[in-house]
Amino acid sequence: SIDSQRLWDSLMAMAEIGPTENGGSCRLALTEEDAAGRRLLIEWCEAIGCSVKVDRVGNLFIRRSGTLDDLDPVATGSHLDTQPRGGRFDGILGVLAGLEVFRTLHDRGIVTERPLELVIWTNEEGSRFAPAMVASGTYAGEFSVESTLAREDRDGVTLGEALEATGFAGTMPVGEPRLAAFFELHIEQGPVLEEEGESLGVVTGVQGMRWFDVTFTGQSAHAGPTPMRYRHDALAAAARLIDRLQSHALADESGDTKVTCGCLDIVSASRNVIPGGVRLSVDLRHVVEAELDALEAVFERELMAASDAFGVEVRSDRIWKSPVVHFNTGCIEAVETAVKAQGVAYRRMMSGAGHDSVYVSRVAPTAMIFIPCRDGISHNEAEYATPEHCALGCQVLLEAILEKAGM
Amino acid sequence: SIDSQRLWDSLMAMAEIGPTENGGSCRLALTEEDAAGRRLLIEWCEAIGCSVKVDRVGNLFIRRSGTLDDLDPVATGSHLDTQPRGGRFDGILGVLAGLEVFRTLHDRGIVTERPLELVIWTNEEGSRFAPAMVASGTYAGEFSVESTLAREDRDGVTLGEALEATGFAGTMPVGEPRLAAFFELHIEQGPVLEEEGESLGVVTGVQGMRWFDVTFTGQSAHAGPTPMRYRHDALAAAARLIDRLQSHALADESGDTKVTCGCLDIVSASRNVIPGGVRLSVDLRHVVEAELDALEAVFERELMAASDAFGVEVRSDRIWKSPVVHFNTGCIEAVETAVKAQGVAYRRMMSGAGHDSVYVSRVAPTAMIFIPCRDGISHNEAEYATPEHCALGCQVLLEAILEKAGM
Ligand SMILES: NC(=O)NCCC(=O)O
Ligand SMILES: NC(=O)NCCC(=O)O
Repeated sequence: SIDSQRLWDSLMAMAEIGPTENGGSCRLALTEEDAAGRRLLIEWCEAIGCSVKVDRVGNLFIRRSGTLDDLDPVATGSHLDTQPRGGRFDGILGVLAGLEVFRTLHDRGIVTERPLELVIWTNEEGSRFAPAMVASGTYAGEFSVESTLAREDRDGVTLGEALEATGFAGTMPVGEPRLAAFFELHIEQGPVLEEEGESLGVVTGVQGMRWFDVTFTGQSAHAGPTPMRYRHDALAAAARLIDRLQSHALADESGDTKVTCGCLDIVSASRNVIPGGVRLSVDLRHVVEAELDALEAVFERELMAASDAFGVEVRSDRIWKSPVVHFNTGCIEAVETAVKAQGVAYRRMMSGAGHDSVYVSRVAPTAMIFIPCRDGISHNEAEYATPEHCALGCQVLLEAILEKAGM
Repeated sequence: SIDSQRLWDSLMAMAEIGPTENGGSCRLALTEEDAAGRRLLIEWCEAIGCSVKVDRVGNLFIRRSGTLDDLDPVATGSHLDTQPRGGRFDGILGVLAGLEVFRTLHDRGIVTERPLELVIWTNEEGSRFAPAMVASGTYAGEFSVESTLAREDRDGVTLGEALEATGFAGTMPVGEPRLAAFFELHIEQGPVLEEEGESLGVVTGVQGMRWFDVTFTGQSAHAGPTPMRYRHDALAAAARLIDRLQSHALADESGDTKVTCGCLDIVSASRNVIPGGVRLSVDLRHVVEAELDALEAVFERELMAASDAFGVEVRSDRIWKSPVVHFNTGCIEAVETAVKAQGVAYRRMMSGAGHDSVYVSRVAPTAMIFIPCRDGISHNEAEYATPEHCALGCQVLLEAILEKAGM
């Protein structure tokens, strides 16, 4: 079985790359910090005899040979990039648990039949380059290589330029190698497992999500002499939309409707200027595709209502649509068997967060493993998972991989 | 009488310093652009024999001698700093109309009894350093010199550092010289004169205004797996407050209640992160002080309601309070007499915007003159006043000054 302390030490060592004030990490995709994290991982893997390939969108494939090396590999992995004030576990756990699996096999001198791959997907968070999971999406054929390389961050730097700058512009064609199975271990990033006193989640799929860029165009004018009824206040319209969407989502007692506005920018903001322009991001999620359609319709209706109420022009672009996903039955079973063997309380569940597995599952049999995180908090420096839960998830990962890779 | 074309030409020349894409100007207080505008003005004034003094907060006093030079001067002026995307007239008209008055007297060889001062007040807009009118406020004793020099912009640069960097850190004690009278010509910055078909406003006072810095502290968390009812969404709380304040102000049929939220910043914003922190600016105005008290009470109540509704901590700091102002009767009369002599429709009115006259009026007899601006728009690149209205206002200024300065 895996070495719990070694896994924990590697997590804590990685967190020191791009550390933030309050104990989290900031390794936005393809920044110098992200690159440093990748280099550290590569160093660790090469030390146990693995070889590294990089594809054209910067995905890393770290290979451990098998006895039947021409078979498709069994893979695991996740991402090393973080949110601007991210935690120490989101993505990182999945990568370093894969490393710990490799190290454990190395220590025991075990060689699997199928080769193994530890995969690090580029820009999973979507925080620097929208959308999220763009590089696993490219691997799975959802996005073209060209469009992915052309994605821009807020400063207009393209993903392709960032790959060149960090030395991770690889040459392997995107989509290679084909995978026999893919397993991803992740923290839940929500409160359910902790609330229910369960230690593991067998993840059967992922809720659908849609991202929108919304712009409100009113008219900037002086805060003092401009009567309220003459105004075209872009922020007032945005606030109305946000407030109505919150009320709508809160009214759904099932808790399945989720609405988040994470970014709001006022054009040339000034205290005594009525905002003339606002950009807003909207993130809609639901576990049922038809309900997500209905939610999108509510959003469009409330947007029009806010536009009318404040005499402000609106425009909304759906920049991303990730349908509801159901994972592969065989892989779910491999995970569930390994989970049961641990003898702890667990549940089958849908993921609320998007993961690289969403896209990988389109081209390879896939399933995920969740462990609880404290207070359900993620995308926050306070994100925390216990060493015991990390080890438990890693052990399940090892067993699911061995089941599919053969010994 | 004044030279309408020369006045217009100087306005258009000043607008070319810090020009913006859409025909406005950006000369944020004590930036290199603001300094360049000041230098151009000084050049123009020295060419007609004026002398320049600078006080410790960077206010410029440009003097034209009189025959009785030991009497307190009669003064006019305004500001040259602009909003981030400001217009060509707000403040600038008052300064360049003063220049045009000096040039007209120079051309005719007229020397007034009292000396004249053209005053350029530092950082009137409050856009770079809050609050607005901080340097005229310092002149009038509302703020200490030390506190004014220590005011910081968003990048942490102090007003004192910006004065040093631009070469406008003067040595004259703040509060000198004492003024026998102060007149300020300004565009209305609102729609009333235009709507009513009037060409001039005799400004009898200024509405009261209060500025607040509000912070909302919730908890950042992942947009996907976090159920709505577990959230502490700082942006949702801010949006609720904005929406309620808008509805409250719009419900006042008199139109005297004014609420503006000009700045909103999310701490470490990311599309798929529930905002954990938001900073919001709130600007409340009313022409009646007791009504402004009542408005502030509504604001405090709605802030608490938003805090409760979304489980978010709030804090509000009133960073500025400018009470309702009533100008000096003698100065108002001097303006009204000059206005009547033009034979055009006019009105006596309160100003919706704050002006340096607000503070100057505490230490010197003061009144203002308004001219209409197109569509009532100001703090916007599209701000416009006709050459005819500018000339009309300048002529009134000349006559009011001569009335007080004597010939
Ligand atoms: N796991 C994770 O944080 N994914 C980012 C994509 C999403 O917003 O769900
Ligand atoms: N005139 C002007 O724009 N003043 C700025 C102060 C205010 O916000 O009223």
